[in-house]
Amino acid sequence: MTDIERDVRKVAERARDAAADLAPLSRDAKDEALTAVADALRERTEEIVAANAKDVAQARENGISEAMIDRLTLTPARITAIADAVHEIVELPDPVGEVVRGKTLPNGLELRQIRVPLGVIGIIYEGRPNVTVDAAALCLKSGNAVLLRGSSSAYSSNTVLTDVIRQALASTRVPVDAVQMVPGKSRESVKHLMRARGLVDVLIPRGGASLIQTVVNESTIPVIETGTGNCHVYVDEAADLDQALKIVLNSKTQRCSVCNASETLLVHAGIADAFLPRALAELREAGVTIHGDERVRSYDSSVVPATEEDWATEYLSLDLAVRVVDSLDEAVAHIRAYSSAHTEAIITDSQAAARRFVSLVDSAAVMVNASTRFTDGGEFGFGAEIGISTQKLHARGPMGLPELTTTKYVVTGEGHVR
Amino acid sequence: MTDIERDVRKVAERARDAAADLAPLSRDAKDEALTAVADALRERTEEIVAANAKDVAQARENGISEAMIDRLTLTPARITAIADAVHEIVELPDPVGEVVRGKTLPNGLELRQIRVPLGVIGIIYEGRPNVTVDAAALCLKSGNAVLLRGSSSAYSSNTVLTDVIRQALASTRVPVDAVQMVPGKSRESVKHLMRARGLVDVLIPRGGASLIQTVVNESTIPVIETGTGNCHVYVDEAADLDQALKIVLNSKTQRCSVCNASETLLVHAGIADAFLPRALAELREAGVTIHGDERVRSYDSSVVPATEEDWATEYLSLDLAVRVVDSLDEAVAHIRAYSSAHTEAIITDSQAAARRFVSLVDSAAVMVNASTRFTDGGEFGFGAEIGISTQKLHARGPMGLPELTTTKYVVTGEGHVR
Repeated sequence: MTDIERDVRKVAERARDAAADLAPLSRDAKDEALTAVADALRERTEEIVAANAKDVAQARENGISEAMIDRLTLTPARITAIADAVHEIVELPDPVGEVVRGKTLPNGLELRQIRVPLGVIGIIYEGRPNVTVDAAALCLKSGNAVLLRGSSSAYSSNTVLTDVIRQALASTRVPVDAVQMVPGKSRESVKHLMRARGLVDVLIPRGGASLIQTVVNESTIPVIETGTGNCHVYVDEAADLDQALKIVLNSKTQRCSVCNASETLLVHAGIADAFLPRALAELREAGVTIHGDERVRSYDSSVVPATEEDWATEYLSLDLAVRVVDSLDEAVAHIRAYSSAHTEAIITDSQAAARRFVSLVDSAAVMVNASTRFTDGGEFGFGAEIGISTQKLHARGPMGLPELTTTKYVVTGEGHVR
Repeated sequence: MTDIERDVRKVAERARDAAADLAPLSRDAKDEALTAVADALRERTEEIVAANAKDVAQARENGISEAMIDRLTLTPARITAIADAVHEIVELPDPVGEVVRGKTLPNGLELRQIRVPLGVIGIIYEGRPNVTVDAAALCLKSGNAVLLRGSSSAYSSNTVLTDVIRQALASTRVPVDAVQMVPGKSRESVKHLMRARGLVDVLIPRGGASLIQTVVNESTIPVIETGTGNCHVYVDEAADLDQALKIVLNSKTQRCSVCNASETLLVHAGIADAFLPRALAELREAGVTIHGDERVRSYDSSVVPATEEDWATEYLSLDLAVRVVDSLDEAVAHIRAYSSAHTEAIITDSQAAARRFVSLVDSAAVMVNASTRFTDGGEFGFGAEIGISTQKLHARGPMGLPELTTTKYVVTGEGHVR
């Protein structure tokens, strides 16, 4: 066993012990601890900003893009926003202890299925240091210990943020080791985290497709895949074209760097003449680069020819792949072939078309006459989310506090035997 | 790509296509197909018995134990029972289409979370050929395609049973390829099944601990672990000793070869004098071999000394590990160290003790004054089960039809944008 493996196992063992002590705590105890964390973030803002400045300076030295530096940077205002987000989690109901099902069986046994924490959750994430606090707060509120493995580019920021959280916890009933950073900046420490089966209950990678793919392939711990969004908007033959235009633009341009932005537009051939010239002009106006098939290019020769790769790409930029399809079923077949099963939308006034699309498209969210941008824990009214699951097991779509729990059955009798 | 890999991928691809056609089918269509399957099982009983006789003859030649041969054998009566079990699944409600949550959001968007099938389920199982039919029927009813990989010792039986199912489906709206056997008898075909990520949505191993461990370690597909039961009964200081005796005996001896039978008895030191002599005598009377710690052996010198391995073993036989503990917390610590987190029971009249045990023991089921044998889909009133999950993600405890589904969000607007 190497030193780094030993170090990772040590924090994981401490997390498992902390999880056992944290699980039975009341909502009051957890909310009091989260409030202490939020207060500490405000009090120690200067220290956090100073640590973050080191990361930012290093990033500039490494020639990292301004967009990435912006995501990395913490200002006093941003730290206040992070503390406010912790307060919002305090306000959310505690999922632990909820009776999901319950009944008295014919033989008199009392059966209850009760929400309990998962145990130890590992979060592997890139870029933004606010995830350190968000993830820790969501895990604590749902009674879970958390192991945090952020980007090495945010190492100083994450180290101070974790220290702020742990010092705040020290004066509360929540065990300090419920929040820990995975030691080491190297890839090796991630590898050992992914193999800590029996100590860590679930891994949640938050970041780009390649990070998620690596974790899915290499982890022996169950993984919840989040956040890969190759989302489609299908404009049906029976669409209201004004609605369609508004939704196409919003899905692509309202915030193009996020997983619920759309990446491909599919247009029914029957309305292509009426819709595409308007849509292409307005998209171009909004700064969008169109990658189109032959039929799309027949409306506008400046459209970039789309390749096979375009259909499969999550651009996360002001690029959009556009294709003309001859039927709803052809649109569904395209979505089945290329989608990451995050969110797809149909724009139609036809009840039959909407029903068929909803029935045949197997994605975490299916929108009818609404922007793909609505797939979001906050928009759905669930509160803060740890990510958007694009897998089918355990949780699908926005993952809030209940999705960070499992259940156990409690069965009470008076000497019952079979 | 080897021939066997190509063959496995081919059936998996056909399953994926069948799953897409099966998912939107109505309950009527699925129940009609299951009824046809039950009828075909009855009609083709002779043929099934003949194929099974080959497996049984081969097993005898291989010197397999009579207990195993009994599990392998199909008689006309057993085939009728299998067909009856399919009819029981017809009677169960269809989980698909259930609206799990739903509301109208403040902006007028209508949000519904709807149960949908998982897609393609792979079942890897040992021994009994009735699993072929049970698993296929549960998967079909929940709208899933199934890939069946049974024991090579039941190959002829499983081949005919799968043929009976598929021929019955041919005259219904359920696609025939929704039920397929994984080709090949070798371990290699299992290996390729475990790597068919993107084609198979979940693997459910049913069988012994070593089978499950292999699948968990080697599969790149999400796995639901089922059925490993190192279950504990803890007799508290405040137990009603008559109740305790009845439950201890029932948990161990009512059917010792199943996962919800108990394997370890923990007795509070405060009642050991009053309880253990009676319990040891009655257990011995029932044919149970006791493996005890020093304190247990002080009551009965014929008790076999328990080793570290005994605490960790799921005997599945008339053996029982017994230990005296000084407190409820010591019992909990023992359970945390050795349990497979299936089912643990406390026998106590103390409300405080019951509450503490339920709160601290993190297993799929926790019994208070009831036998561990009650952890069962039928006993819980859920109907037929595909297995009992001992993991925390997706499903925990008895897995019936709802546990074979996932959900999707359907969001309906009228041109809504952010």
